[in-house]
Amino acid sequence: MAQVKLVDDKSAKPRAKKVFADIKKTRNTDYINNIWRALAVHPPMLERFWANMKEIMVKESRLDPMTKEFIYLAVSITNNCGYCINSHIAAARKKGMDDETLAELVEIVALANAGNRLTIGLQVEVDERYKPNK
Amino acid sequence: MAQVKLVDDKSAKPRAKKVFADIKKTRNTDYINNIWRALAVHPPMLERFWANMKEIMVKESRLDPMTKEFIYLAVSITNNCGYCINSHIAAARKKGMDDETLAELVEIVALANAGNRLTIGLQVEVDERYKPNK
Amino acid sequence: MAQVKLVDDKSAKPRAKKVFADIKKTRNTDYINNIWRALAVHPPMLERFWANMKEIMVKESRLDPMTKEFIYLAVSITNNCGYCINSHIAAARKKGMDDETLAELVEIVALANAGNRLTIGLQVEVDERYKPNK
Amino acid sequence: MAQVKLVDDKSAKPRAKKVFADIKKTRNTDYINNIWRALAVHPPMLERFWANMKEIMVKESRLDPMTKEFIYLAVSITNNCGYCINSHIAAARKKGMDDETLAELVEIVALANAGNRLTIGLQVEVDERYKPNK
Amino acid sequence: MAQVKLVDDKSAKPRAKKVFADIKKTRNTDYINNIWRALAVHPPMLERFWANMKEIMVKESRLDPMTKEFIYLAVSITNNCGYCINSHIAAARKKGMDDETLAELVEIVALANAGNRLTIGLQVEVDERYKPNK
Amino acid sequence: MAQVKLVDDKSAKPRAKKVFADIKKTRNTDYINNIWRALAVHPPMLERFWANMKEIMVKESRLDPMTKEFIYLAVSITNNCGYCINSHIAAARKKGMDDETLAELVEIVALANAGNRLTIGLQVEVDERYKPNK
Repeated sequence: MAQVKLVDDKSAKPRAKKVFADIKKTRNTDYINNIWRALAVHPPMLERFWANMKEIMVKESRLDPMTKEFIYLAVSITNNCGYCINSHIAAARKKGMDDETLAELVEIVALANAGNRLTIGLQVEVDERYKPNK
Repeated sequence: MAQVKLVDDKSAKPRAKKVFADIKKTRNTDYINNIWRALAVHPPMLERFWANMKEIMVKESRLDPMTKEFIYLAVSITNNCGYCINSHIAAARKKGMDDETLAELVEIVALANAGNRLTIGLQVEVDERYKPNK
Repeated sequence: MAQVKLVDDKSAKPRAKKVFADIKKTRNTDYINNIWRALAVHPPMLERFWANMKEIMVKESRLDPMTKEFIYLAVSITNNCGYCINSHIAAARKKGMDDETLAELVEIVALANAGNRLTIGLQVEVDERYKPNK
Repeated sequence: MAQVKLVDDKSAKPRAKKVFADIKKTRNTDYINNIWRALAVHPPMLERFWANMKEIMVKESRLDPMTKEFIYLAVSITNNCGYCINSHIAAARKKGMDDETLAELVEIVALANAGNRLTIGLQVEVDERYKPNK
Repeated sequence: MAQVKLVDDKSAKPRAKKVFADIKKTRNTDYINNIWRALAVHPPMLERFWANMKEIMVKESRLDPMTKEFIYLAVSITNNCGYCINSHIAAARKKGMDDETLAELVEIVALANAGNRLTIGLQVEVDERYKPNK
Repeated sequence: MAQVKLVDDKSAKPRAKKVFADIKKTRNTDYINNIWRALAVHPPMLERFWANMKEIMVKESRLDPMTKEFIYLAVSITNNCGYCINSHIAAARKKGMDDETLAELVEIVALANAGNRLTIGLQVEVDERYKPNK
């Protein structure tokens, strides 16, 4: 369910079909999850988000795939996006995350959210040596 | 500068002095940055935040120190805490983060913030297989 | 359901009854949605929010009614207010918004949320020419 | 400075002048701070925000004036509104808040921000007994 | 339900058992709510959050227990943490909060969220007299 | 200034140079603002954000250019991104936005932020008729 129709494989427009096929191939799965079926209501939006996701999260780069998932999760928890938290916990578990590592991640996210407010609440000025200066 | 006096080494109360000493020893530095000097206005608050920081961020655990910094930074960027971003970028650089890795981190944070709103905006329901069920 | 009783037409106090009547008349409908019935637990709060809503969102002004709905929706999506998103999507649809326009709106909201974090994460200073100077 | 001209007493339109006078009288001061001078660019906006502020924050009610300031501050810290934090800390100090009470407030705000993310990160379902049921 | 198993009294590890016992004693109840059972998946996390909660929220201090609950609630509402809102409304009701006081609290939270954006949107600079200067 | 070097025209890598040229041509200007010079530290990031910005914000579509700016601004104000607010107010002014329209926009953003918290604070359930059902 969503505020737009979740597009199934049959009714997908050609541009959406192509993205679905690439998701299946890239992730080596037959399952397309709801967010992609919702984005397919407007194929250029589906193409763009998938292209970004693939280049930033899937393509090999300096940061390893698990670290990328942790960063994505940290943001999703801070923003309270239920869909994103549940689906990316699933993705991280598939990559090997166990319950204790999830607990560690969640506790760092909580600590940072606390630390952010201690600093903001007391209106602490940035130390000379940390200021952006480039 | 801050909304409370930044406590210097001399005027620090005994409980604050002890924390300052532990920070210096743990981080192998002589520099105490502003946030700790501000927290020292209420020593039990300083003790608690430092104890949490030390146990969660410094103590050896499943997640390595660099990954912890990335998670802390991801939250601070999402919340727009200037002090926290600048000081934790400095900490991450000390641990070896270069500009391109910072760029990668920032782009994942941006992508997750975007992905969160695509999902929320379309009100996509969590797939059966991702739902919390424990 | 809510954390306070949803006030029905019968049990509404006189001041709440008057607001309910004005909502029905202004919106040309017989349906009072849940948020108004919840606010009615404290009639002055109901009066104030309805007065603000009516003057800012309903009264003719520089911005047209559809643009106002888009702005309201952009905020509600960024804040992840489920109730607000669903009810204001309904309101926008009544004014003529189709699925593709909703998709466009959602994608701009996502882009802005991403752009905000790129700028914050890199701690980019405002260009001289854009600074507030009045 | 702001993105709109800060309206001074002389150039204020009659409707803005009237609000300025009421602010001075209500607060027993001759000083009008920047936010009100900025809102005066659009007098109906100034009137509305002042009316809400006066009725909700100033008018006698169940919650005492200091508690109201604490709640306003807790929100402003969570949202990182620098202007609001600094001006409402000043207001709370005028009502008697000392540095240690400020520290206590800030620490509760930090704790709640942490607690929120622990709960969200682990996707904990609301206990049957706490669910809204009215 | 949660993303980790809710630990029951029987299967709790010794460190978790001890915290459960202290919660029951401190709160004078036999009921352990879901968040604590979820945190028990990683006992040091359970210990730390409970220790913080107990010292900051329960231990006698400058701010009275009801005011503390209001501050915690203001943050949780701003962050939209459903679990936290529902459980802390229950806690505040137990301490004597009625529906009208809840309504007052919620309206101040809404006002502050509005005031924050008026100030941010117009980019109003902090008045000289409110600036942090210590 | 930023946490990474702002790349000038001379030292820009070929891929960044090409994006700078496209920005100048598309916007019919010789000025490249700081955010693009910061993103250039990692050319693929610069390419991606510019491509998204161009396709979503510049390319002709259902929503007109001014409405798009309003939506972008509404998000940036809610998130308190100073850089984004100041630069997009400039962009909107170039497209014809006057101070009163800015005031209207800001007031709707404030109203929505308030309305979001009234609904969340009272935990109002979505009306049957507004629920996502597709």
